[in-house]
Amino acid sequence: MAITVVGSVAYDTIETPSGRRERCLGGAATHFSLAASFFTDVRVIAVVGEDFGPEQEAVFLRHRIDTRGIERAPGKSFFWEGSYLDNLNEAQTRQTDLNVFASFEPKIPDAFRDSDFLFLANIDPVLQRRVREAMPDVKLVAGDTMNYWIKDHRPALLEVLKGLDVLLINDTEARMLAGNENLVQAARAVMAMGPSSLVIKHGEYGATLFRKADPINGTAHSTFKVPALPLEQVVDPTGAGDSFAGGFFGYLAAQPDLTPAAYRRAMFYGSVMGSFAVERFGTERIAELSRKEIDDRFLQFRELTHLD
Amino acid sequence: MAITVVGSVAYDTIETPSGRRERCLGGAATHFSLAASFFTDVRVIAVVGEDFGPEQEAVFLRHRIDTRGIERAPGKSFFWEGSYLDNLNEAQTRQTDLNVFASFEPKIPDAFRDSDFLFLANIDPVLQRRVREAMPDVKLVAGDTMNYWIKDHRPALLEVLKGLDVLLINDTEARMLAGNENLVQAARAVMAMGPSSLVIKHGEYGATLFRKADPINGTAHSTFKVPALPLEQVVDPTGAGDSFAGGFFGYLAAQPDLTPAAYRRAMFYGSVMGSFAVERFGTERIAELSRKEIDDRFLQFRELTHLD
Repeated sequence: MAITVVGSVAYDTIETPSGRRERCLGGAATHFSLAASFFTDVRVIAVVGEDFGPEQEAVFLRHRIDTRGIERAPGKSFFWEGSYLDNLNEAQTRQTDLNVFASFEPKIPDAFRDSDFLFLANIDPVLQRRVREAMPDVKLVAGDTMNYWIKDHRPALLEVLKGLDVLLINDTEARMLAGNENLVQAARAVMAMGPSSLVIKHGEYGATLFRKADPINGTAHSTFKVPALPLEQVVDPTGAGDSFAGGFFGYLAAQPDLTPAAYRRAMFYGSVMGSFAVERFGTERIAELSRKEIDDRFLQFRELTHLD
Repeated sequence: MAITVVGSVAYDTIETPSGRRERCLGGAATHFSLAASFFTDVRVIAVVGEDFGPEQEAVFLRHRIDTRGIERAPGKSFFWEGSYLDNLNEAQTRQTDLNVFASFEPKIPDAFRDSDFLFLANIDPVLQRRVREAMPDVKLVAGDTMNYWIKDHRPALLEVLKGLDVLLINDTEARMLAGNENLVQAARAVMAMGPSSLVIKHGEYGATLFRKADPINGTAHSTFKVPALPLEQVVDPTGAGDSFAGGFFGYLAAQPDLTPAAYRRAMFYGSVMGSFAVERFGTERIAELSRKEIDDRFLQFRELTHLD
């Protein structure tokens, strides 16, 4: 079933110990869409400037991603420059130019309204909520956020959380949101804010899925862990989290039933896509990926974690 | 098959957010022995002072641990005081009194010489090497070390590593020993120093097993991951690493063949024993543990990681 995603489509300038790339295609919605496109149909809502040309759009179109929700506005696209020279696990932001994103008003094409799955990438919670409310009939809503919104826009974010089925955030964000250093207690507190499933990402240590008790199916509050792939070289971590979300949510959207087993496999596909994302700069690796590579790596994750 | 372990038997004064314990039974050899005793026969080589009485010895004897290698010396036992008030993942040492440990000369009882498995807990590498050389016929040797020996006693430690089959250390120690921040590259470098298997412990994020390629069995360089159990409360992390080692090595020692599958299950049992260790202060939890609790938790780890 189709996913609609709202978020940023941007240009990134990235410096890591492996080198530097100027103005490569980036943004949360871009990374998410590309990763999810290997599993299901994806539709993007975003805004770009006059610098977004046919070459960039072709990256989406080659993956059969519906770009009719990408609005062109006068001016420049969102631009971010960051460095991982000091720490591959955390970017140091050098520059952020919101540009056309500053006045982004998400518009939902009619053709997108029958989407069963909705992903609210990391943007202003006021916009996340507006899109959520404009699509009340979706089957499953997942979303992301970041420290800035948690700290300085908490009331708006809490409204978004009420309408989310799945929240995907990292350790630091989960602890900050819950005000609790213990990750299990923090997960419980965050789920009490709305989402019935919570994916906490641990960077090079993988991710944990927490799910609320489901009395209907007789399952208790449950937890599932997936590691990250041990890699000899991390070229560029930009977009790893969004690629994880794309693999996770894309796989779920392609399943006939959202069983606990489907969620577990979705965690594997999330980590699979995250592991590819960091192998090259920006979208370079995932844009060139084949389905066979994904399936092979899924088996590699199975080997890495399963007793038999 | 029997394990001989050499290491510290000590008194610990521990402060954590959950409270404080004065002079409770501790030391690497103690935590290791108790955890391993659920799987196989364990024999301890250590030195204690006149303050080590029948009450402490009874903890070992109740687990059928052979204490004939625990030497009594005039003076006091090794004493350590540490606090986890600032950070549950890392102890701040407040006091270390080597006492009788300062002049420890490990003596191997004749009855221990037929041990097939040898564990060199974290002590001076000069002593580790001496014990290793005195038991040349063991089937498998594992060991631990710490930042102090890595930094200031490197030549002696490198000699020990040549005689080890399995090294168990944490992330920081692996990176420091290899001089490489990338964990996969660091693992490769450490295995080139001797051990054919390397367990890197990640605290609350579990542990990774790296193994050298084994051309005889046709297996390639391999990796296996086990998470830590997500816990609502970590009461006291002291001894978690040694308990992990005890579960891991104890399970291996009880297997008829050291297959790759045996190593994978050993990783699970390591994490199982580590997860119990932190639930109460010092040895309190593991000293009271039942085999059924271990088996139940093993299944819980399986649930936590397996797709089906």
